[in-house]
Amino acid sequence: MIKAAIMGYGTIGSGVMEVLNINQNGIAKRVGEGIEVKYILDLRDFPGDPIQEKIVHDYKTIVEDAEVKIVVETMGGVEPAYTFVKAMLEAGKHVTTSNKALVAAKGAELIALAEEKQVNFMFEASVGGGIPIIRPLNSCLTADEIEEITGIVNGTTNYMLTKMAEDNADFEDVLKDAQAKGYAEKDPTADIEGYDACRKIAILTSLVCGQQVDFEDIHTEGITKITAADIKYAKAMGRKIKLLASSKKVGDGYAAMVAPYLLPKTHPLYNVNGVFNAIFVHGNVLGDAMFYGSGAGKLPTASAVVADIVEMAKHMDKNIKVEWSSQKLKLADYKAISNQFFVRVSAEDKTAVENVFGAVSYVDAGESGELGFVTEKLTEAEFEKKASELGNVIQSIRFA
Amino acid sequence: MIKAAIMGYGTIGSGVMEVLNINQNGIAKRVGEGIEVKYILDLRDFPGDPIQEKIVHDYKTIVEDAEVKIVVETMGGVEPAYTFVKAMLEAGKHVTTSNKALVAAKGAELIALAEEKQVNFMFEASVGGGIPIIRPLNSCLTADEIEEITGIVNGTTNYMLTKMAEDNADFEDVLKDAQAKGYAEKDPTADIEGYDACRKIAILTSLVCGQQVDFEDIHTEGITKITAADIKYAKAMGRKIKLLASSKKVGDGYAAMVAPYLLPKTHPLYNVNGVFNAIFVHGNVLGDAMFYGSGAGKLPTASAVVADIVEMAKHMDKNIKVEWSSQKLKLADYKAISNQFFVRVSAEDKTAVENVFGAVSYVDAGESGELGFVTEKLTEAEFEKKASELGNVIQSIRFA
Repeated sequence: MIKAAIMGYGTIGSGVMEVLNINQNGIAKRVGEGIEVKYILDLRDFPGDPIQEKIVHDYKTIVEDAEVKIVVETMGGVEPAYTFVKAMLEAGKHVTTSNKALVAAKGAELIALAEEKQVNFMFEASVGGGIPIIRPLNSCLTADEIEEITGIVNGTTNYMLTKMAEDNADFEDVLKDAQAKGYAEKDPTADIEGYDACRKIAILTSLVCGQQVDFEDIHTEGITKITAADIKYAKAMGRKIKLLASSKKVGDGYAAMVAPYLLPKTHPLYNVNGVFNAIFVHGNVLGDAMFYGSGAGKLPTASAVVADIVEMAKHMDKNIKVEWSSQKLKLADYKAISNQFFVRVSAEDKTAVENVFGAVSYVDAGESGELGFVTEKLTEAEFEKKASELGNVIQSIRFA
Repeated sequence: MIKAAIMGYGTIGSGVMEVLNINQNGIAKRVGEGIEVKYILDLRDFPGDPIQEKIVHDYKTIVEDAEVKIVVETMGGVEPAYTFVKAMLEAGKHVTTSNKALVAAKGAELIALAEEKQVNFMFEASVGGGIPIIRPLNSCLTADEIEEITGIVNGTTNYMLTKMAEDNADFEDVLKDAQAKGYAEKDPTADIEGYDACRKIAILTSLVCGQQVDFEDIHTEGITKITAADIKYAKAMGRKIKLLASSKKVGDGYAAMVAPYLLPKTHPLYNVNGVFNAIFVHGNVLGDAMFYGSGAGKLPTASAVVADIVEMAKHMDKNIKVEWSSQKLKLADYKAISNQFFVRVSAEDKTAVENVFGAVSYVDAGESGELGFVTEKLTEAEFEKKASELGNVIQSIRFA
């Protein structure tokens, strides 16, 4: 029996326990022996629950027990998760986490520490929930130079945008529905403002380039300004609005951004609906690939955590090298990225539109008193300049 | 420098050389040192080609050179690939292959031999070309019991079915076009009869259940009977015809089949068009996941081979365990699988249809003199019995 501990018995932590129980036999067969959870660290007690006897309140109990070889961190947030994880690695224990905030902020440092201690620090569940993407990047797409990685990596906003399109509903109503269904949190800021997606693309970009990418450097727009009228225009164009988190190779570097895009039917991410996530990758020899699945949820996310446990149990004596140094990557200016843009203005601005943007394609979605149009391909900087020249822009959305 | 050898300098073998050259620096960074191809085994000489000096005609030159640590097999076919690969593993060399025929026939034996010799036998490129699927099954989806794996795993037939739908074209015309474009071979039997897809689902099923699945045991139908009229019906139903290779958990075992299916728009594989491949996986805790990408082609396939080289170079001293024993899995009878069926009969058989199949849904595709209808869900055995009772069935296609 390999002894493990779980830190944080919330949704994911209890899911990990459940997956270890449900698939006990298959997991033991793959590892060569069983996995036994010896401790669960939580502030709470769980009287009457069979796991009550495993509960400890001090992380040092786990640190000091040499029998515990694998630790799962499912607490969320940077602190105290960081202090606890660091102590576990320093004590020579393998650690897996589902915590994107921790990985985005401290990934490079914890990877280096794990290598020094010849253990593993894994974080498959931190991006894309149950979708295998971290390990494929680290051990499958290694023959390629990754030129683009673009994902729908936030299930809450994808659910909301899908629902807005299905029901012709407005943002506020759909947010309430998502909160009622448990897809959005009481304070939904991190999801709807794109902060969650931003941390995830920071992690993916760090893995792709092998250097530290700070999420604070990534230009991030959420979906709070998307309205039912925008959805009408999208439908008129046969498109869907999706919140994309994207990194593209520009010269020797990468430019990263999180923002809503209007996607055509032919785009690989067009059909990713509801709470599903997908990550599109373009490699210089591989070409296009996509990874699709449940981006969140108790059991899918726990499935990824437990797969890390299995991988660590199969590599108890070996550090699997992860390319992610603490050397900071200076991102290319996102304003150099080129797109077409979809724009809505007042109907009376037609002459001004044509003076500023030249020949544009108009879109009729039956909205009275206004004009919708699609620009030529422009850099972000060019568009910003033209939009400010024009003034009174009701809405602008990138057009992929 | 890690020394390697390539056996078979055809499309994939030369692609491997190309990828190692194009992405030399990135690969060396990931491995920690460079990869140098010391020998290329081929029957031919390549006068004037820079690789000419690496050409050898006797595989024993490679076997006997202790400096060569990694061998790539891209010859195709079971023999002499099997003899050569076995000799390389016995000599303590790591081997990667793109050869599905070899892996389907001898996978379990070669995996066991690699484990015995503490080297690795890898075969990422044997299924799905550039799409990472073998390593994800072996190291990412390990927390799950896989209840279904269904793929579009043959690019030739998917190109042909896509083209038939786009151009309302008949099978024979599209086959000629595919041959002219190099997507189909001169003798296209292995692709169009489903034999290639059959070997691939045999490999995937073996990995999923950890036991040997013989491809000869898998019921296999190709696409040779699909006509332009079938495509018209598919369109009338808002569906597409796709050749699916599928394994599903039935009780304690798996039932596997290769056959064309009519897929609805909501099916995850509906939008996989042209030469692209995709593999859908359903795990008992993960839920649905899908892996999508270039299923064939020189560089994408070589990308997967080179990713194996990198993985082996990072594990020179460690056998990564692969669950695939030589113990044979007795597949469940495919006749117990249930589907709806789409059927075409002569218009005069309407009464007979209703006597035999009861209430069916008719489909109007404007084909005169005939009737198209969809049955209730039936087992393969039940459908076979009813279809033979009815007699004169023009066409039947499974309806997913």
